[in-house]
Amino acid sequence: MADGDNGGAPMRRPSLNWLLVFIPIAAVADLLVHQPVLVFVSSCLAIVPLAGLIGKATDELAIRAGARVGGLLNATFGNVTELIIAFLLVQAGEVEVVKASLIGSILGNLVLVLGASYLVGGIRFKEQRYSARSAGIHASSLLLAVSGLVMPALFVWLANDTAVQREVISLTVAGVLIVLYLAALVFTLITHTHLFGVRQTEEKAEWPMWLALLVLLAAALVVGIMSEFLVDSLEPTVAALGLSRVFVDLFVVAIIGNAAEHASAVLFALRNQMDVAIEIAFGSSTQIALLLAPLIVFISLAIGRPMDFVFSGYEVVAVTLATIIVSVMSRDGHSNWLEGLQLLGVYIILGVSLFYVGT
Amino acid sequence: MADGDNGGAPMRRPSLNWLLVFIPIAAVADLLVHQPVLVFVSSCLAIVPLAGLIGKATDELAIRAGARVGGLLNATFGNVTELIIAFLLVQAGEVEVVKASLIGSILGNLVLVLGASYLVGGIRFKEQRYSARSAGIHASSLLLAVSGLVMPALFVWLANDTAVQREVISLTVAGVLIVLYLAALVFTLITHTHLFGVRQTEEKAEWPMWLALLVLLAAALVVGIMSEFLVDSLEPTVAALGLSRVFVDLFVVAIIGNAAEHASAVLFALRNQMDVAIEIAFGSSTQIALLLAPLIVFISLAIGRPMDFVFSGYEVVAVTLATIIVSVMSRDGHSNWLEGLQLLGVYIILGVSLFYVGT
Amino acid sequence: MADGDNGGAPMRRPSLNWLLVFIPIAAVADLLVHQPVLVFVSSCLAIVPLAGLIGKATDELAIRAGARVGGLLNATFGNVTELIIAFLLVQAGEVEVVKASLIGSILGNLVLVLGASYLVGGIRFKEQRYSARSAGIHASSLLLAVSGLVMPALFVWLANDTAVQREVISLTVAGVLIVLYLAALVFTLITHTHLFGVRQTEEKAEWPMWLALLVLLAAALVVGIMSEFLVDSLEPTVAALGLSRVFVDLFVVAIIGNAAEHASAVLFALRNQMDVAIEIAFGSSTQIALLLAPLIVFISLAIGRPMDFVFSGYEVVAVTLATIIVSVMSRDGHSNWLEGLQLLGVYIILGVSLFYVGT
Repeated sequence: MADGDNGGAPMRRPSLNWLLVFIPIAAVADLLVHQPVLVFVSSCLAIVPLAGLIGKATDELAIRAGARVGGLLNATFGNVTELIIAFLLVQAGEVEVVKASLIGSILGNLVLVLGASYLVGGIRFKEQRYSARSAGIHASSLLLAVSGLVMPALFVWLANDTAVQREVISLTVAGVLIVLYLAALVFTLITHTHLFGVRQTEEKAEWPMWLALLVLLAAALVVGIMSEFLVDSLEPTVAALGLSRVFVDLFVVAIIGNAAEHASAVLFALRNQMDVAIEIAFGSSTQIALLLAPLIVFISLAIGRPMDFVFSGYEVVAVTLATIIVSVMSRDGHSNWLEGLQLLGVYIILGVSLFYVGT
Repeated sequence: MADGDNGGAPMRRPSLNWLLVFIPIAAVADLLVHQPVLVFVSSCLAIVPLAGLIGKATDELAIRAGARVGGLLNATFGNVTELIIAFLLVQAGEVEVVKASLIGSILGNLVLVLGASYLVGGIRFKEQRYSARSAGIHASSLLLAVSGLVMPALFVWLANDTAVQREVISLTVAGVLIVLYLAALVFTLITHTHLFGVRQTEEKAEWPMWLALLVLLAAALVVGIMSEFLVDSLEPTVAALGLSRVFVDLFVVAIIGNAAEHASAVLFALRNQMDVAIEIAFGSSTQIALLLAPLIVFISLAIGRPMDFVFSGYEVVAVTLATIIVSVMSRDGHSNWLEGLQLLGVYIILGVSLFYVGT
Repeated sequence: MADGDNGGAPMRRPSLNWLLVFIPIAAVADLLVHQPVLVFVSSCLAIVPLAGLIGKATDELAIRAGARVGGLLNATFGNVTELIIAFLLVQAGEVEVVKASLIGSILGNLVLVLGASYLVGGIRFKEQRYSARSAGIHASSLLLAVSGLVMPALFVWLANDTAVQREVISLTVAGVLIVLYLAALVFTLITHTHLFGVRQTEEKAEWPMWLALLVLLAAALVVGIMSEFLVDSLEPTVAALGLSRVFVDLFVVAIIGNAAEHASAVLFALRNQMDVAIEIAFGSSTQIALLLAPLIVFISLAIGRPMDFVFSGYEVVAVTLATIIVSVMSRDGHSNWLEGLQLLGVYIILGVSLFYVGT
């Protein structure tokens, strides 16, 4: 399972730090040039390395904190970039964008990242193995999330629902999903640790504690600023480029917060550490579906711009299909390049249909 | 697999016999006080121990009859309480209530009982094992039933159907399901007995034959009377309490006939006899889906109040989701507390959406 | 795995050659008697042995060509009869018939043939084994095809689609599926041959090369003529017999091109060579879903009678259900008579609902 190269950490995250140059570009474009398309593109590009830095800083803290607290830190801050973007979007009243970007993140992690990992790893290695048990537990969690997506959507679609009913159903489903996410954390970090490929074992911290904390806070702050730019420039950019709104939400906004994480999953696959790659792809999907999305339902209620848990037919069907395919594929604990290519094919099929929705 | 305690039988069914006190209460409330809500609640509570007694008497007869005939008796009388209630509801023209209570029974057994068994057993034991083969055969049967639910509903929904077409499709599907149920009996009791955890092995009969028969008949008779009370008081109770009709049908009427069986499944899980717990939960679900529901289609036709096999969108989707989740969860032959909690979460998610339907 | 009987080849395809007598009958009925129903029935019956001869000739060529090129030949010419029929139907503008017959072919192979093989093989042998890995790879391919069926249909159903959008989505999905089919060929024939039960090993060619080529060409030519008769007589026959159009397309037109192949799958099951039977049933389904159907999309565009990749709700749901059931059933690598009967039951349930559609 371990490969010949020395320490794992340096290879873990590809250096995307040169993309940080887009921070000042976005600022200039927004404050001086007033070019929305340029603001949108450069703030998107700037968020990619910032999300990477947040991930790196979280890892550093996690290594120092030991396996359990470290696992908890990773599970909590793993999608902090998405949370910041989603929060600002909710505040701006862009509830549908938030929903689409959450679904896009789930699909991106589950289909695109997993597919790329299987493909790239499978080209280098004939067959790669991972824990079918661990993948099965993630698959169960995702199927729960699918129930949580399907039932409210079905209710709104078939019944003459009232706003109150919609709110009660949304909050109940969101509450159940959060409880089940926390339960899964207890399961993986406390009661059944032995079932999961442990991630941090041999790693050594590279940064002193204060640096990790500083990077975490600074990067989160700049992500916040970039996300402001992004939210402000979203509408005019979509209009200027004549793109489908749903497509931008699902495939652009959704990906930028995950790009760094995505890249590291593929790198782990290349090093034949499929359990880690799987953990990133599946873990990130379940975190968004069971924690982030329900959390935003409660946060949005708290700040007076309630978002319900009712997703569109496309969104529900796309996640359901992706979950069933990945469940069936991962049941044997093997992967190869064909499965990778198949998942990428599914991503294209889902994408092309969504490209035209809402144009 | 075997635990330290002595004989299994005394522990098998929890004593709910004190609930029998609700038999006279229901009678008094119906005949003297004319209080529909009280009649409804007390007749519901009275049916619980009666269903338990029917189960116990069937078990006693089954032990004497040997494994094969005994298995057949269990398979035939296992849901006799539900059959009596359903028969009276059909006679009263309450066809939609029957359908909802059948779906509710399937969901209750498949999600609630299995979830409670996994959870309670998983708290006491780190990991419980059961036959993945046996669970897989049940999962296949349930998927068949799902096809039988989906296709007629889809037909009615998409086509301009006529009453004759609806009847032919319903009878064909019902006929196919019954044949497949009988075939599964032949499979489990005759041709492939070795695949299934045998249940009655070491048990000894506690009751003489005449007592078992007497209890069976007497309990069935009283269940009939209580069910009459229940059917009569259903409408006014739902109106008086302002409850959703579908909710009452799916979650109240459906549960009372199964409560005793449910309790014994959880007790088996506590004793680490997961194969028996699984057999009760899965077996009861498949029996309702493949035998009871289709049987009522034919019975209803015979008594001139035909019920078709067309279920609502909610009912079809809820059973489909539950079946897929349980299929994926049970494929590895392991269970733990997290899976139990997840199934209970699914039950709440299904329940909250259905709570508001049809208010 | 090998049974006592001598060489496999003579037993491989049941002799249906006496049905060739229907070739002149169809010709006479069409050219002289002008009896559409007789033309339809006799051309259907004539195609069955012709498809068998094409299969036999392809096998003969495949044996001479060696495992890889042979596998490629089989994969390419395996459904040449369906391709000819579909081409003529597209040319006649009968696009809906083509779609229905493609779906019917998938269902026929996946549910009817697999069910018959399981049942017949399971009656003779208590339990039959096959490679769960190989079945799982086919199941993944079919789930891909399901995505390709679901998403365009959902798009057309939910969005206000334009003809251009429909065309782009259809061509993209079709292109992705063809690429994935070719990738699966590379996987099974080049990079991962060891995972698949090889079929041709000990067989010896019976026919000289020139005979195999001659039979292939002649049979394909006559299939073309018979298909012309069939296409011309389809409309009047449906009208004359008062049958549901969808039913005829799905269950009659779909079966004739596969009947010979179907029979040989069942024969392999009888000889306990389940890997070959599975390969025929699954392989044929995936070939139709991932190669034939998308190919017709491109061909139809080339000849100026474009067929899109948008299937009806029934068709999509039926294939989805069938794929999920077969995926769950085949995950353990075992089959028995009950699973066979269950699949046949599913086929009847799908059939009876479709019988009335579009009458």
